[in-house]
Amino acid sequence: MNIACIGLGLIGGSFALSLKKNFPEIKRYGMDKNPKHLEKALELNIIDKVLKDTDLLSMDVVVVSIPVDKASTVIQEVLDKVHPKALVMDMGSTKGELCTAIADHPKRDQFLAAHPIAGTEFSGPEAAFSSLFEHKTMIFCDVEATQSALVELAKSLIAPLEMSLKYMDSKAHDKHLAYVSHLSHISSFMLGKTVLEVEQNDKTIFDLAGSGFASTVRLAKSNPVTWTAIFKENQSEIIQALEGYIQNLKTFQKQLESQDYSQIQQELVNANELKPILNGILKKEENGN
Amino acid sequence: MNIACIGLGLIGGSFALSLKKNFPEIKRYGMDKNPKHLEKALELNIIDKVLKDTDLLSMDVVVVSIPVDKASTVIQEVLDKVHPKALVMDMGSTKGELCTAIADHPKRDQFLAAHPIAGTEFSGPEAAFSSLFEHKTMIFCDVEATQSALVELAKSLIAPLEMSLKYMDSKAHDKHLAYVSHLSHISSFMLGKTVLEVEQNDKTIFDLAGSGFASTVRLAKSNPVTWTAIFKENQSEIIQALEGYIQNLKTFQKQLESQDYSQIQQELVNANELKPILNGILKKEENGN
Repeated sequence: MNIACIGLGLIGGSFALSLKKNFPEIKRYGMDKNPKHLEKALELNIIDKVLKDTDLLSMDVVVVSIPVDKASTVIQEVLDKVHPKALVMDMGSTKGELCTAIADHPKRDQFLAAHPIAGTEFSGPEAAFSSLFEHKTMIFCDVEATQSALVELAKSLIAPLEMSLKYMDSKAHDKHLAYVSHLSHISSFMLGKTVLEVEQNDKTIFDLAGSGFASTVRLAKSNPVTWTAIFKENQSEIIQALEGYIQNLKTFQKQLESQDYSQIQQELVNANELKPILNGILKKEENGN
Repeated sequence: MNIACIGLGLIGGSFALSLKKNFPEIKRYGMDKNPKHLEKALELNIIDKVLKDTDLLSMDVVVVSIPVDKASTVIQEVLDKVHPKALVMDMGSTKGELCTAIADHPKRDQFLAAHPIAGTEFSGPEAAFSSLFEHKTMIFCDVEATQSALVELAKSLIAPLEMSLKYMDSKAHDKHLAYVSHLSHISSFMLGKTVLEVEQNDKTIFDLAGSGFASTVRLAKSNPVTWTAIFKENQSEIIQALEGYIQNLKTFQKQLESQDYSQIQQELVNANELKPILNGILKKEENGN
């Protein structure tokens, strides 16, 4: 079997490495717009061969893992060129705009919209590792629009990763992810900005900050290109999630101004409700790494 | 030497355990308002003996690690009763209000305002461990108000912990900590609240959230009593820090509304500046644990 990975960063690179580990017989072709990434991917054995345009017709599967604002163009170009029996899937973090954009493509039923809930704050082929997806959640969106044989093919490729597979509508996916992922990134980026504006001396931050700060601001290290694209593709849902967050912060600020400490304590007790969920996520992550 | 630890939660308990490890000859007395904590501290060998009011005069050192809004009252009561050569120190996260409140106490020069930058999202004596403070930062505030011999005594007790010792003015301490610690907690608590309000089904959060969400919301697990007290004691600095954060979030929201993605990407690039600082903090934490 021939599989092409277009985009060889953290996500695409990790998927290619998982193929190498679990299906050594598969020939892995790869392409990345960044020539350094492509070179590195070859060097690190993430792929076997550089994908040429003329190779596309002989691919059984094409996996697209590129910034989400570029995905619909690339996926449509790929669909135009692939074999009528090939599967094309993406690995992006947003799905609504993409699924709308390709809805009328004549080969729509060869495409599967997939989103592995996995990642780190690092990026590029050097950050890729074969177990990134293991035991994580995989979401397939609008699966009824894809040929069922091709859905089964995708499932067989991720089977060794023992992922928890969920099916979602692409619009619902984007709404949920705005809250449980995209908002976390904005909160982290802006927290980083706020602290950097005030603490002109990096040494002060370093000396005074503990693991709590590091944890909360960890996502501020994330890749700006990847995340600008996500914010762009999920703009309207994110604006709404952000509005809710800003309102809650303002309410908290007002409670602080009016010294309503019993209400503040109640807010913290309520937020503590996340404890069992967070402990569960951490356990899931530990199993996955 | 006799040392009393008043407050036997994560901080007080961990300090008592570090004494046991590094100075086995010291007799450790302890007290906690919560009878279960006191019992647990005895059971876990965090302390040797329960501190009675009549024991106070024979203590060489008294370490107060209780919610910061209760600290100035307890510290003044302790100062009233201790031996004229004893050291009283606290371990709280805020210092401005406390140092103002006790400024005129006749035994002010027997008190040292200390803040170890160490903690986890867990609390109570069960969460305590002897290496919590190792290789972390210790801040001594307004040290010129304390007898230098007693400052040296405090330094000798933490010497085996190899902490990085910083001297700060108590007001400056509170201003910096509002940004690098207290704001992180609020951002986390409110992010947790925002997500819980929308995602009525815990299972959805669990399924869709990855390690990024868990990291950003980790501090929402923190103890409500401890943190309400910190917000109360550092109210004015926190309101200001929170205002800066809210303004930055609003600016981001406006950039998103006006689809100014080049500016958004620049914001993320700027926040990436935290990378080396965060990597340094994580290295410091790894050494400490």
